[in-house]
Amino acid sequence: MTAEKTSLTSSPIRDQLEDLHRQFSSITDGAVASHIVELARANPNAFGICIVTTNGGVYEIGDSRQEFTVQAISKPFVYGLALEDEGRAEVLKKVGVEPTGDSFSSISLDPQTGSPRNPMINAGAIASTGLVHGRTPEVRFNRILETISRYAGRELKMDQDVYSAESATGHRNRAIGFMLRNFNIIQEDPMPVVETYFQQCSILAHCRDLATMAATLANCGVNPLTGERAIQSEYVESVLGVMGTCGMYDYAGEWLYDVGMPAKSGVAGGVIAVLPGQLGIGVFSPPLDQKGNSVRGVSVCSELSRRWDLHLFNRPGIGKSVVRLRLNAGEFNSSRVRTLAETKILREHGQRIQVFQLQDNLVFSTAEYVVRALTECAGMECLILDFRYVISINDSAGHLFHDILCQLHAAGCVVLFTGLTNNSPLRRLIRERLGDRSDDLFRTFDELDAALQWSEDRLLARTMPDIPNTSIAVTRYELLNGLNREDVAVVQKFFERRNYAAGEIIIQAGEPARELFLLTRGVVTVFLPLEEGRRKRLATFSPGMAFGEMAMIDHAPRSATIVADTDVSCDLLTIGKLAALGATYPKIKIHILENISLELCRKLRKANREIAQLV
Amino acid sequence: MTAEKTSLTSSPIRDQLEDLHRQFSSITDGAVASHIVELARANPNAFGICIVTTNGGVYEIGDSRQEFTVQAISKPFVYGLALEDEGRAEVLKKVGVEPTGDSFSSISLDPQTGSPRNPMINAGAIASTGLVHGRTPEVRFNRILETISRYAGRELKMDQDVYSAESATGHRNRAIGFMLRNFNIIQEDPMPVVETYFQQCSILAHCRDLATMAATLANCGVNPLTGERAIQSEYVESVLGVMGTCGMYDYAGEWLYDVGMPAKSGVAGGVIAVLPGQLGIGVFSPPLDQKGNSVRGVSVCSELSRRWDLHLFNRPGIGKSVVRLRLNAGEFNSSRVRTLAETKILREHGQRIQVFQLQDNLVFSTAEYVVRALTECAGMECLILDFRYVISINDSAGHLFHDILCQLHAAGCVVLFTGLTNNSPLRRLIRERLGDRSDDLFRTFDELDAALQWSEDRLLARTMPDIPNTSIAVTRYELLNGLNREDVAVVQKFFERRNYAAGEIIIQAGEPARELFLLTRGVVTVFLPLEEGRRKRLATFSPGMAFGEMAMIDHAPRSATIVADTDVSCDLLTIGKLAALGATYPKIKIHILENISLELCRKLRKANREIAQLV
Repeated sequence: MTAEKTSLTSSPIRDQLEDLHRQFSSITDGAVASHIVELARANPNAFGICIVTTNGGVYEIGDSRQEFTVQAISKPFVYGLALEDEGRAEVLKKVGVEPTGDSFSSISLDPQTGSPRNPMINAGAIASTGLVHGRTPEVRFNRILETISRYAGRELKMDQDVYSAESATGHRNRAIGFMLRNFNIIQEDPMPVVETYFQQCSILAHCRDLATMAATLANCGVNPLTGERAIQSEYVESVLGVMGTCGMYDYAGEWLYDVGMPAKSGVAGGVIAVLPGQLGIGVFSPPLDQKGNSVRGVSVCSELSRRWDLHLFNRPGIGKSVVRLRLNAGEFNSSRVRTLAETKILREHGQRIQVFQLQDNLVFSTAEYVVRALTECAGMECLILDFRYVISINDSAGHLFHDILCQLHAAGCVVLFTGLTNNSPLRRLIRERLGDRSDDLFRTFDELDAALQWSEDRLLARTMPDIPNTSIAVTRYELLNGLNREDVAVVQKFFERRNYAAGEIIIQAGEPARELFLLTRGVVTVFLPLEEGRRKRLATFSPGMAFGEMAMIDHAPRSATIVADTDVSCDLLTIGKLAALGATYPKIKIHILENISLELCRKLRKANREIAQLV
Repeated sequence: MTAEKTSLTSSPIRDQLEDLHRQFSSITDGAVASHIVELARANPNAFGICIVTTNGGVYEIGDSRQEFTVQAISKPFVYGLALEDEGRAEVLKKVGVEPTGDSFSSISLDPQTGSPRNPMINAGAIASTGLVHGRTPEVRFNRILETISRYAGRELKMDQDVYSAESATGHRNRAIGFMLRNFNIIQEDPMPVVETYFQQCSILAHCRDLATMAATLANCGVNPLTGERAIQSEYVESVLGVMGTCGMYDYAGEWLYDVGMPAKSGVAGGVIAVLPGQLGIGVFSPPLDQKGNSVRGVSVCSELSRRWDLHLFNRPGIGKSVVRLRLNAGEFNSSRVRTLAETKILREHGQRIQVFQLQDNLVFSTAEYVVRALTECAGMECLILDFRYVISINDSAGHLFHDILCQLHAAGCVVLFTGLTNNSPLRRLIRERLGDRSDDLFRTFDELDAALQWSEDRLLARTMPDIPNTSIAVTRYELLNGLNREDVAVVQKFFERRNYAAGEIIIQAGEPARELFLLTRGVVTVFLPLEEGRRKRLATFSPGMAFGEMAMIDHAPRSATIVADTDVSCDLLTIGKLAALGATYPKIKIHILENISLELCRKLRKANREIAQLV
């Protein structure tokens, strides 16, 4: 009975897509594009569907690997490349972003400026191609091909026959090219630009490519299957913007109303749709409706939107679950082992230390929720913001955290950041904005536990007298609590005194446990050794406390390494000596065992309370 | 040093909005609407900004409580009411959804059908008003006023002077009314409909109202401040759809490209913008640009979108953090206290029980991530899906969970659902779809802990012989492990045998702890009493185990109530008897204390391992 990793052979999502594929296979409306013979030859029954999610899920049904030419689906991707090459402002001077209500081949130039209304009609697309950098037409086309290949996650090729045919018949597009030249929208010989446009339309892709290209736009420009960036994040919203209002030609308004996803279709039968942050859809079916969109493609997208609630404007409220855990040091503590007196103070005043463990993507709206909660905490001593579970932080969220840090600091509240990796954009952003004040204000800790201990120590230092690093009397060992002077004197004979220099290892993980330690002087820390020489802090002990007793009780090898933080003195009680003590002075051993049990009881109760807060 | 709840007097968000307000106050472009004197009298310097988030955050700056007439901002809300009254199909027959590229007052009727191109131009808006139900014009207008009031969260009123002036000068709209009558888009006398339209435009609101109305659309139709529903969820996407493509008149394409939020402006200077799932923006500033949109309103929305990354098409990937915790019973167990043998089996085979603790909103894309992970778990014994932290589940996600439940069941894997409240839509959906098979397949537990115990019990039952409910020998008490027969016989003299009927309370929370219990026969469960007679399961014990020993050790009052699940027999060891045992037979007491310490050690190590997994 071992845990085999067996997968289901299907998945509900695949099943639903298969249903849909079967159901929509019966639709035989529409006609295959016939303006060139290469497209007219397409099999009208070919039908593929593919979904790719931003977290890497792929679902393919039907003829999802049959290649066809992308045609107008190239337009948004080339527009994106033009934005990267020329910048948004320059591109907007040449190509508008208003829907026309006209068909795809309408020339639709602004009567004053001559600029095409938007980059999804042919005029705007040709103008966009002309804005792509490239010393020669070959260089320009290769840059386009490489870019679209990055979106698709594989090396795409061009269909030479389709290109030749498009070129042989594309006189209307040549007319558009010269109109654009006339208005100086294209400032070079327009003929090579139009040829490049024919080439980009002739790039071969299959359904899975389309879905991956769409998912790359949904994923802020990063291909979710290869992890490669295909377009700078800042231009993705612009590409999706024009797809949203102009992607489906004069059907755009109804499309956004009904389907609710930016989309683009091609005359060879391809359709892509993008649900930002979530997924990309690719459909292939050659027969087209009168508006030039694939009949089944439109139906599949529409049905998926309805069935899966994919409409962009139908989103549940985000926010509250950005706080994964909210804790305070009155109920949840660092692993630093505390004396009874310290424990009592923490239980009473620990709520002055609040922990916000955050998660997911921090954008304005999720950060707003956190910052609003933080503004109510100005009376606290310490606020710990744990970013360990945060997936991404955008700049607007980063600025809010910077601002609230400054405001809380001014109100006398210390803010601690944990779980930020060194490369975190948040760390960089706050450091930059704080400048000289960074070291002072911006306290970061790798681990929540360390930040919590720092905050607890600070709280305790304010309430309790400093304990100087001198040896304490044996009578103050917690393990000997309640024993009278004579009994303590007896026990002391069984001890063995040891001294360690700061940094010295007292206990090595993996060794057998032969003794318990009573800390007389100094501080020790317990570490769990991790891979690559890293280690995780587990606990810290201070004078009067015992450590290493658990392994002695359950005869387990040492589970952790214990290191002297300062110069340290200990009294050791070995297994043999404890047995000898029991043989001669059983009542004293009973007393010690009762003290050990009591301490274990306390820790267990606390651990159970903490677990109840976490699950 | 108590934890005072002190709030910051400001917040970074408020500060940023104040900056923006100051900065944009200097813009003096544009001209106040002048077609009626009531609007022409508006103070061009009046300027308010308000943000309302879907989780209830409110930020108001400037003249945010100054009332003005909503004008065209009423259009999407009335359109929504028409959709509710007539259904989407009927409304689409009368009013289109295509952007026109024309200005707001253009008549723009479809030359064939006479239907207005979209509901945001005057013709479409008047047609929408005519579709709102109401026996008399008064009833119709009152329904509109009440609806918009629900969006705003307060009782709004109409400005009688503005209405009178609009009515006195609105001849073009009367012409539109008769054109609509001519095409049978309006099938009654159009004049009262046009009057109602003038009235709806004359409803008074302030900036905070606008932001709340926008936030209500962002929040799937529920006002986030009052919790009241203003429009059925299914129509929200349609209202936002027309705002997205047609809301800013002939500026719509550029708006969606640049600002990336569905929006609507009014000629009195109001602008609303909606970021679905996140927030609503309301701005008020009377001077208008040439397209009839508030100059500062457009600037503020555009700047906020840029500064706060609010563009609809720029969303980080969602998905992975929907799984809050992933646990397995090899590492994390129910609170049922197990014997050593059971613990060993769970540690070895517990990974055949997997727990997925889910959180946040379950929509298609988040559910897809979970379902994909589940399809890889078909080889497991039990899969527990904990919905305790789930905020919402839509139907598409619900269907996926139904489907995967059936598929995993067919593969021999038991799926358990926890944390669903009785009213959960998921529960209802799955029950309905399973029908007769529901009782068989759909296992739900209130608490994760109970589901985990059930799964562990099932796993153990397959591997271990059934223990019949008869008394076990005293020698099998874990507390007496390692004692020889003679010693056990000695201890037995200190015991007191007790019997309890099933359902009887053995220990009552709050009572002083005077004894520990050794369970001879039957099963007991530990409960924490909660409010209103409810109780939370903490642990279950079976024969051979001790319970109640912790309170005896630390002299705390009983923290929980212990109830006999079956008929139960126990041996009691009181504090007094244990002391007496120690006095006469110290070595036996030492042995018992060592066993207690050992058990506490084991539990504490396990608890610490579990905590490490949870934080």
